[in-house]
Amino acid sequence: MSPDASPVSVNTPVTLREVAAAAGVSVATASKALNGQGRMTAETRERIRETARHLGFRPNSLAQSLLRKRSFTVGLLTNDTYGRFSLPLMAGVSDALVDKGVSVFLCNVEDDTRLGQLHVEAMLDKRVDGIIATGKRIDRHLPVDLSNLRIPVIYAFTQPDAGAVGLVSDDAGGARLAVEHFLRLGRRRIAHVSGPASFAVVHARAEAYRDVLKENGLAVSEPLLGAWSEAWGHEAVEKLFGSAGREGWPDAIFCGNDQIARGVIDALRERGIRVPDDVGVIGFDNWEIVAEATRPPLTSVDMNLSTLGREAGLALLSLVDGQPAAPGIRKLPCRLVVRQSCGSPPE
Amino acid sequence: MSPDASPVSVNTPVTLREVAAAAGVSVATASKALNGQGRMTAETRERIRETARHLGFRPNSLAQSLLRKRSFTVGLLTNDTYGRFSLPLMAGVSDALVDKGVSVFLCNVEDDTRLGQLHVEAMLDKRVDGIIATGKRIDRHLPVDLSNLRIPVIYAFTQPDAGAVGLVSDDAGGARLAVEHFLRLGRRRIAHVSGPASFAVVHARAEAYRDVLKENGLAVSEPLLGAWSEAWGHEAVEKLFGSAGREGWPDAIFCGNDQIARGVIDALRERGIRVPDDVGVIGFDNWEIVAEATRPPLTSVDMNLSTLGREAGLALLSLVDGQPAAPGIRKLPCRLVVRQSCGSPPE
Repeated sequence: MSPDASPVSVNTPVTLREVAAAAGVSVATASKALNGQGRMTAETRERIRETARHLGFRPNSLAQSLLRKRSFTVGLLTNDTYGRFSLPLMAGVSDALVDKGVSVFLCNVEDDTRLGQLHVEAMLDKRVDGIIATGKRIDRHLPVDLSNLRIPVIYAFTQPDAGAVGLVSDDAGGARLAVEHFLRLGRRRIAHVSGPASFAVVHARAEAYRDVLKENGLAVSEPLLGAWSEAWGHEAVEKLFGSAGREGWPDAIFCGNDQIARGVIDALRERGIRVPDDVGVIGFDNWEIVAEATRPPLTSVDMNLSTLGREAGLALLSLVDGQPAAPGIRKLPCRLVVRQSCGSPPE
Repeated sequence: MSPDASPVSVNTPVTLREVAAAAGVSVATASKALNGQGRMTAETRERIRETARHLGFRPNSLAQSLLRKRSFTVGLLTNDTYGRFSLPLMAGVSDALVDKGVSVFLCNVEDDTRLGQLHVEAMLDKRVDGIIATGKRIDRHLPVDLSNLRIPVIYAFTQPDAGAVGLVSDDAGGARLAVEHFLRLGRRRIAHVSGPASFAVVHARAEAYRDVLKENGLAVSEPLLGAWSEAWGHEAVEKLFGSAGREGWPDAIFCGNDQIARGVIDALRERGIRVPDDVGVIGFDNWEIVAEATRPPLTSVDMNLSTLGREAGLALLSLVDGQPAAPGIRKLPCRLVVRQSCGSPPE
């Protein structure tokens, strides 16, 4: 089925997935064949074993665990199949799992407890090896109780149950990256325009913004909180530049998301204020379709969500493999993607 | 488990899903209990049957088929888990299926034939009842052969195999909606700015644009083909308004997607050309995050992708139920979402 499957280098361990691909069967079938389980013809079993011998397959401890009891399927529960946050995260989960020959069973529970319960039951029926729960925001629970399942659960970009393992982005660290970048470029009057006060990340980022300015002995102006929209970016520029004299204007604006930043930049251009010459702007999310279309292209904080998803997938596999994990929330670092909206360091 | 489960009105048939929810079990378990199959305690089976009796459950022909042989799971294959086209489509599929108590098993095959083969094998291992294939664009095949599976397959927003059932948006019809809307508003010099010539939809939409203008005895200017980007929208405005005298300017621009339209509107504003007073603009895709943030908000053609996904889900269930379907491509209508970028009809 895969005529190009050839023995791989002796330096890289052959995976069960490679055996399966070379034999033209699923990973689950290959697992059963090598483990002497499952229903299949003797010819098929022998052919798969011969393929494994030919490739030099050596089951490692994870693989042996897989051989014993696994279905090679994990459930991914989300209430956000539209969102641009959960999508890269889900892609990262898939990438991590497919490398181990594991398929993902995605269910959208929306905001419906009964629907969530049905989907969890269906996942248990399918004997998934574990469940990853993800959502729209890190300060909300999914509308389903996962605390008493018989299988491992990892939470990623959603509020974990008590005693569980949760992975989230380090929003305060991301905000630090932005403000410290402005400082390195010589900006000193830095404003912060962000989303609604009902979001925990708004406060985490605003606090980091204040902390960095205080640590550097600079004036802190109160963050302007509004909506996650371009329209709010326009409005915030009116507030910041409408009344004060030129000497009161900020020389940098750290925005809570890329849409706000885009609105800010458009509004500045329409006032004849130059970006980045007069004012530097940084966004948050690094949503490329927005950040790259902004004029000039937008420097933005990236939450590394696909890495976060990848880590969640690997953490789940460790739990499935019987390795204990410390409960609690683990924060993964953000990174700053520099484009043209902040300019170069001063001479 | 669901204390709020109460007998439903006698006018709406009770579904298996409702029985399952009321009994606090999965649909598959409820199915097995009512069908005398599966492993469970006699107490559980009797409890589920009592719940079904209490609710007045009557298996219909589809439900009876379900009771016989179904796993209540379908596979959704895609090579586009990021895309804004497949996401609403996938949500529509899920909505349609969850109404029937069916869970969706989503796999991303990327552009990798071996990965695709592995995922299809995993789906067959899990005994999915059928597969829906969807992708990034309607003129490309998924990188996996689904033509000889033992289970039903429906293609949605991707190129179907010969002899299969495919559902796609009616792009020509969508373009007609846009151009005819301009004509009703009294616009007569209508330009078309679209994406790359390598896309089949670019030609389908351009041909419909030409047809409508010819049918109305109006001048057809050659469509400007470029990229699916805001930057191309800016560039196209330079081409259309840069050299010609004012009398050569179009009074309407039909754009191939919303990003182009946004670039067009921004570029017009920067030239002091008023939208919609001087020039009306229509986009395509109705990507709300773009269409609603455009100033003025953008009138756009919506491909009704979640309806398309819903229809694909229902078509798959019909096939699973043994009802034959005519092979070939079925085009589903678009609709025009009117916002403020075209103005009102002339007095």
